[in-house]
Amino acid sequence: MDLNSYLGAIENFLQKSTYGTQPAELYEPIRYIMNLGGKRLRPVLVLLGYEIFDENWQRVVPASVAVEVFHNFTLMHDDIMDKAPLRRNHATVHTKWNENIAILSGDVMLVKAYEILLQGVEDRFLRSALQKFSRCATWVCEGQQWDMNFETRNNVSITEYLEMIRLKTAVLLGFALELGAMLAGANEVEQEKIRLIGENMGMGFQLKDDLLDVYGNPEKFGKQVGGDIIANKKTYLLIEALQNAQNEIKTELLNWLSVKEFNPQEKVQAVTAIYNQLGMREKTETIIQNYFQKAFDSLAEIQATENAKEKLRNFMTWLIERES
Amino acid sequence: MDLNSYLGAIENFLQKSTYGTQPAELYEPIRYIMNLGGKRLRPVLVLLGYEIFDENWQRVVPASVAVEVFHNFTLMHDDIMDKAPLRRNHATVHTKWNENIAILSGDVMLVKAYEILLQGVEDRFLRSALQKFSRCATWVCEGQQWDMNFETRNNVSITEYLEMIRLKTAVLLGFALELGAMLAGANEVEQEKIRLIGENMGMGFQLKDDLLDVYGNPEKFGKQVGGDIIANKKTYLLIEALQNAQNEIKTELLNWLSVKEFNPQEKVQAVTAIYNQLGMREKTETIIQNYFQKAFDSLAEIQATENAKEKLRNFMTWLIERES
Repeated sequence: MDLNSYLGAIENFLQKSTYGTQPAELYEPIRYIMNLGGKRLRPVLVLLGYEIFDENWQRVVPASVAVEVFHNFTLMHDDIMDKAPLRRNHATVHTKWNENIAILSGDVMLVKAYEILLQGVEDRFLRSALQKFSRCATWVCEGQQWDMNFETRNNVSITEYLEMIRLKTAVLLGFALELGAMLAGANEVEQEKIRLIGENMGMGFQLKDDLLDVYGNPEKFGKQVGGDIIANKKTYLLIEALQNAQNEIKTELLNWLSVKEFNPQEKVQAVTAIYNQLGMREKTETIIQNYFQKAFDSLAEIQATENAKEKLRNFMTWLIERES
Repeated sequence: MDLNSYLGAIENFLQKSTYGTQPAELYEPIRYIMNLGGKRLRPVLVLLGYEIFDENWQRVVPASVAVEVFHNFTLMHDDIMDKAPLRRNHATVHTKWNENIAILSGDVMLVKAYEILLQGVEDRFLRSALQKFSRCATWVCEGQQWDMNFETRNNVSITEYLEMIRLKTAVLLGFALELGAMLAGANEVEQEKIRLIGENMGMGFQLKDDLLDVYGNPEKFGKQVGGDIIANKKTYLLIEALQNAQNEIKTELLNWLSVKEFNPQEKVQAVTAIYNQLGMREKTETIIQNYFQKAFDSLAEIQATENAKEKLRNFMTWLIERES
């Protein structure tokens, strides 16, 4: 689908943003991570949410970028916590500079996200926009803490996992749509409806990420297929598989989870074979479909013209079909 | 001086604040650091700034606490960066829990500071309060980055040092007074005047800290006297001494800075003796006095009754005379 006009306006605003100058150690990492690219999903969602209720989406490009800056702040700090060496095939900030710089530079990014939002929002929406942004920011941090807690737990339930990805990933997509709708003058009821569309879309989006990590096309995926399997990351597929596996299959799966020395390719193949036997691909595709279906159904109920909603519908279809 | 009514109201509001519940790893560190005590200087300054222009200071206790939460967020993250084991004689958050928890818990604290400020500020002051808060938060981070940069530099000038402590410490005291004045309805000119009073007070306050570290009364100081000397911390006294020392005194001072193994007590005594020879105590007392004098002079120019200003004047006198 064609998002070029949105993306052009977003990149244009990003290119003009310097965030600050001195000390350079504080601001260079911000420009660095913001320039690593990415799909810019969240600012695009702000503009999509806006355009459903009003056509002059150019007005809210600055506010949309605040959400992208916030998202990249979470990436900068998450990468420290996860000890991740790479982000989008480039060195992470704490690797390229150091941990202290990544902590402090991230702190400033969070302040800058608030500042950009302040600048991009009219007085009449200011309190509501900032309250909802802060609520969402809190949720995202809670999601990250649950995610870290789950690393050392072996009894994470599907319910807990779904709540974790809702907080860590889905609520920010919800807020992005909600913010756009709010700034276009949509009432509270419509704002909450569209927020939930974003949240359901976000659930489907993250579960698709889990799926692509195992079943993605290596030529299109951009990351190493099987990375989650190698790292024993508790994804939807693994948690569901652990619950469904029985007898020797369960023993084999638990064995792969506990073995310290292994051939990565062999482990990926073996665990993928177990997932295949348990029908995890179909099961995950079904739950993804369910979340997106909820989003489509809610979108149908939004009080706006079909024409206005078409773009968001196409965007969701593109998200479902994405291969990276 | 009697700050009991202020402090009672501040502690009362703090005791009611839970910040959040689950996951506990995220919120317990916030309650922990907020309960470590401290002088609560910054919220007191908000109330003092308010009371100069309006008597109903109870109204802005919530807004005042936002500044204290922000200050403690900076302490939580600074302690990680400084690898500090203790804060107010208790284990620091990253020591008691771990670094990841201290990073993420601190991030939530910054969001909570914004949330508490949002709740505590009327619509008509909202944009201005948030803009000035964000500007100040950015400055504080810049100050911390300069401070870290100075650790590995041997040519830090007095000008650079004073600018660093202005950003890291003084501007937040300035913002606290400014916020109080703003919320009491003072105009922009008076707000900026009182902000500068806070900034000058903050400079004197930090330089007094530098002084107390060397010349404080061990029974009253609360921290180890000479801690900065042992750690080669670039304080006003050290930078000024390095600039003033000549010949064998300079050699001796540089020697103490480079020696890796030493008796701490001996180093403190020797460096203090050098400071004495160079008249550093008097020099530092003079500059402290100058900053506070600027603050007193500006206070005299504030458009308010003498009665209203008396409390802030007494507070500053108490700050000058403090021994811990």
